[in-house]
Amino acid sequence: MFERSFASLIRKEIIGLDTQVPLMNNGFTKYVNFDNAASTPAFKVSYYKVKKFLHWYSNVHRGAGFKSQIATKIYDDVHNIVANFIGADKDKNTTIFVKNTTEAINKLSYSLNLSDGDIVITTLMEHHSNILPWRNKAKVIYLQLNENGRLDLTDLKSKLEKYGKRVKLVAICGASNVTGYINPIHKIARVVHNYNSQLLVDAAQLIPHRPIDIKSNNNPEHIDYLAFSAHKMYAPFGTGVLVGPKDTFLQQGPDYSGGGTIKAVTLDDTIWANLPDKEEAGTPNIIGAVALGATIKFLEKIGFKKIVKHENKLLNYTLDQLQQLEEVKLYGAMKTGNAKKQVGVIPFNITSIPHSLVAAILANEAGIGVRNGCFCAHPYIHYLLGLTDKEINQSKKALAQEDYSQKPGLVRISFGSYNTTKEIDHLINTLQKIIKRQQSGFDLTKNYEFDSTSGEYMPKKDFNYDHFFKL
Amino acid sequence: MFERSFASLIRKEIIGLDTQVPLMNNGFTKYVNFDNAASTPAFKVSYYKVKKFLHWYSNVHRGAGFKSQIATKIYDDVHNIVANFIGADKDKNTTIFVKNTTEAINKLSYSLNLSDGDIVITTLMEHHSNILPWRNKAKVIYLQLNENGRLDLTDLKSKLEKYGKRVKLVAICGASNVTGYINPIHKIARVVHNYNSQLLVDAAQLIPHRPIDIKSNNNPEHIDYLAFSAHKMYAPFGTGVLVGPKDTFLQQGPDYSGGGTIKAVTLDDTIWANLPDKEEAGTPNIIGAVALGATIKFLEKIGFKKIVKHENKLLNYTLDQLQQLEEVKLYGAMKTGNAKKQVGVIPFNITSIPHSLVAAILANEAGIGVRNGCFCAHPYIHYLLGLTDKEINQSKKALAQEDYSQKPGLVRISFGSYNTTKEIDHLINTLQKIIKRQQSGFDLTKNYEFDSTSGEYMPKKDFNYDHFFKL
Repeated sequence: MFERSFASLIRKEIIGLDTQVPLMNNGFTKYVNFDNAASTPAFKVSYYKVKKFLHWYSNVHRGAGFKSQIATKIYDDVHNIVANFIGADKDKNTTIFVKNTTEAINKLSYSLNLSDGDIVITTLMEHHSNILPWRNKAKVIYLQLNENGRLDLTDLKSKLEKYGKRVKLVAICGASNVTGYINPIHKIARVVHNYNSQLLVDAAQLIPHRPIDIKSNNNPEHIDYLAFSAHKMYAPFGTGVLVGPKDTFLQQGPDYSGGGTIKAVTLDDTIWANLPDKEEAGTPNIIGAVALGATIKFLEKIGFKKIVKHENKLLNYTLDQLQQLEEVKLYGAMKTGNAKKQVGVIPFNITSIPHSLVAAILANEAGIGVRNGCFCAHPYIHYLLGLTDKEINQSKKALAQEDYSQKPGLVRISFGSYNTTKEIDHLINTLQKIIKRQQSGFDLTKNYEFDSTSGEYMPKKDFNYDHFFKL
Repeated sequence: MFERSFASLIRKEIIGLDTQVPLMNNGFTKYVNFDNAASTPAFKVSYYKVKKFLHWYSNVHRGAGFKSQIATKIYDDVHNIVANFIGADKDKNTTIFVKNTTEAINKLSYSLNLSDGDIVITTLMEHHSNILPWRNKAKVIYLQLNENGRLDLTDLKSKLEKYGKRVKLVAICGASNVTGYINPIHKIARVVHNYNSQLLVDAAQLIPHRPIDIKSNNNPEHIDYLAFSAHKMYAPFGTGVLVGPKDTFLQQGPDYSGGGTIKAVTLDDTIWANLPDKEEAGTPNIIGAVALGATIKFLEKIGFKKIVKHENKLLNYTLDQLQQLEEVKLYGAMKTGNAKKQVGVIPFNITSIPHSLVAAILANEAGIGVRNGCFCAHPYIHYLLGLTDKEINQSKKALAQEDYSQKPGLVRISFGSYNTTKEIDHLINTLQKIIKRQQSGFDLTKNYEFDSTSGEYMPKKDFNYDHFFKL
């Protein structure tokens, strides 16, 4: 009852859930979006606010006109809405708007003034966006995982102990985009602060699913830096957020400079603007900020309690079913009852069917959108698949030569607050069909052409995309 | 006749032109937007396409679902639409989507692999976004201006001659955001290429007003790098563009790395993705790309011939009127008939009335939105105002201490394709009133409070912004 009422209510608030998509068999079906970890559809309220705001749209800052005044007020307001949403101490922290989480983390990597001897501790379960930005600026050390693919916290302590003051930052995801595992960020923060280091939480996968309170800067369990994206929280209009102590960003010039970042410029000097202006170079994405503000207000109205309850139910329900399919291999320690420590992301494979073929069949024969491959987290996938160094190296060489034919990977389903058990039933039924057909000797690849330069199975049918959306 | 028909047609295609704004006298009036150089309102078609696309919205790349396939196709298509719009040779160049022009130029500043001995030649008429990114990466040399504030091309030759191979880039605006002056970019390109250097054109102010053809890479008059923003061309959804030779971006890793920028990642190696993916880290602003694609298609449909003709008429009409107001000081060599060498941007001051007071009165008493101050081009404003080094230094010190009370500056009006002579009449009438009242001894500041920390005159009336737009 609860699920039906919650899901049916929230589905009315989201754009595109009734979109009919074409199938291989010339039929149509309502699209099932199980790719929310990549991006969520938009809340109607975000869109409505953007629509209304377009009548007032104008550039912010130093425009005297009424529209510019109103746009500036709203843009500033959204900074406060965001800061309040995550419990930031506004006196000590700044809230910087960027394009996405990746930009947020890269920006931080420049702002920390890292040098060669410095160490950034990250983990084997990170998205590339929390690995690559650190690489060319410091020595990167990876926290180990246990046999379930979860973070090994004893390793955190021992590495902090070993490297001491050299550790300038510990950079950890709030939840994994591959397994959905939630990390105990406040417990980690306490350990990190015990060793006088700082903690970045990449909250891209956590923020749509759990309430986050970064806590007062005086609290030993506070999060120093938080990064996340609006496009994973029902406001896909190109905005991301970086929150962190003002002190960090006052140390030096911004990584990107130009319009809006200064108080004064002469031919030989620059006086930087106050925060966050200094770190938001150029005309900001004001529309994106409006959408983000609207989505946060709406999430607060719904309340995370309901979202968590519903999403946990979806997760348990799915794991229950998947565990009964012998041919489905789950990764990590996926099992019913774990939902408190995991957001709704499930990676799996079907024995002897390539992940990209499973994804293609789900998409083209059942209208189910999933993602497959390595989800921008190659080291984690290598770990979960148990690849040897030799296998990893072979794969790297093949990919470098654009041979994706043997690309390792998984199929990933990921839930939003609006998914339903009915949609999960459709997925399970389809997986059962795939397995049965495979077992009966049917050539699953029959209707597809394999593209070795992408590793994807492309449908032989021409879907004529222009018929559905055209610029 | 022509103007009426063109303006009335195009006004129907833009959002928010009928918005009524409140005035100091408790009345309301239709907003007049003369702040298009900062940002333009949105074409309805951009908004409609975004609206429709939201039903298909999904993340791009490696999503197997139909929505992800369609989003990927559209996102790739827009890259081609942009490349075609500016005549880019797609084999040799890459089209990278960023947030805004400022990000585009900053990205290039990292990609050029500049070192201390290298020289970037820019000019005294640039926006800060084409000055500051170069400063901490190379020695920056400024091209001089003539007495009208126009670029001195003999200085370009002599500086290229003098610094020879050390000059890695010449970075020049296509049109000034202060005076609207158009630079002869192809003539400049020929000179720059003669000396084996490369040319960046900051086209932020040129792109909504003139057709741009960067020409084939083999043509000595081609533009090597072009940067611009969608929010100045009627698609304010947070997208900017950097176009340039693939070779440049293949030299090294991207400035921002993470999701989408790689083919393979191991713990000790990275294989970068092909262009433009390598340079578009993280989930891109897909909605912004849709809006940009739609706006370009619409601009092409209208045709720049009509836009140029109409905007030139607006410019000449305004200059004609302003020249007749003795108390109005125009800067540079603004005069009727110059429209071929200038886009619709006019900076002025009224004798003995602060620029911020003029802007406040226009906004609050006539509903006219303009911008005032230094327009993120301090060196150019200093030049146009003829400030001495001592005055510049004093101003810098005051601004550094957040004392904006004496901030030098101008009032700027800037036209979009949709402005009308009727709106200009309203401006001129209002300016005449301001001058008359000033001359009659009326205290123009009466209804305002001066905020020395911003330099702005704020209306004493509380306009209650929430009444007009609220999140």
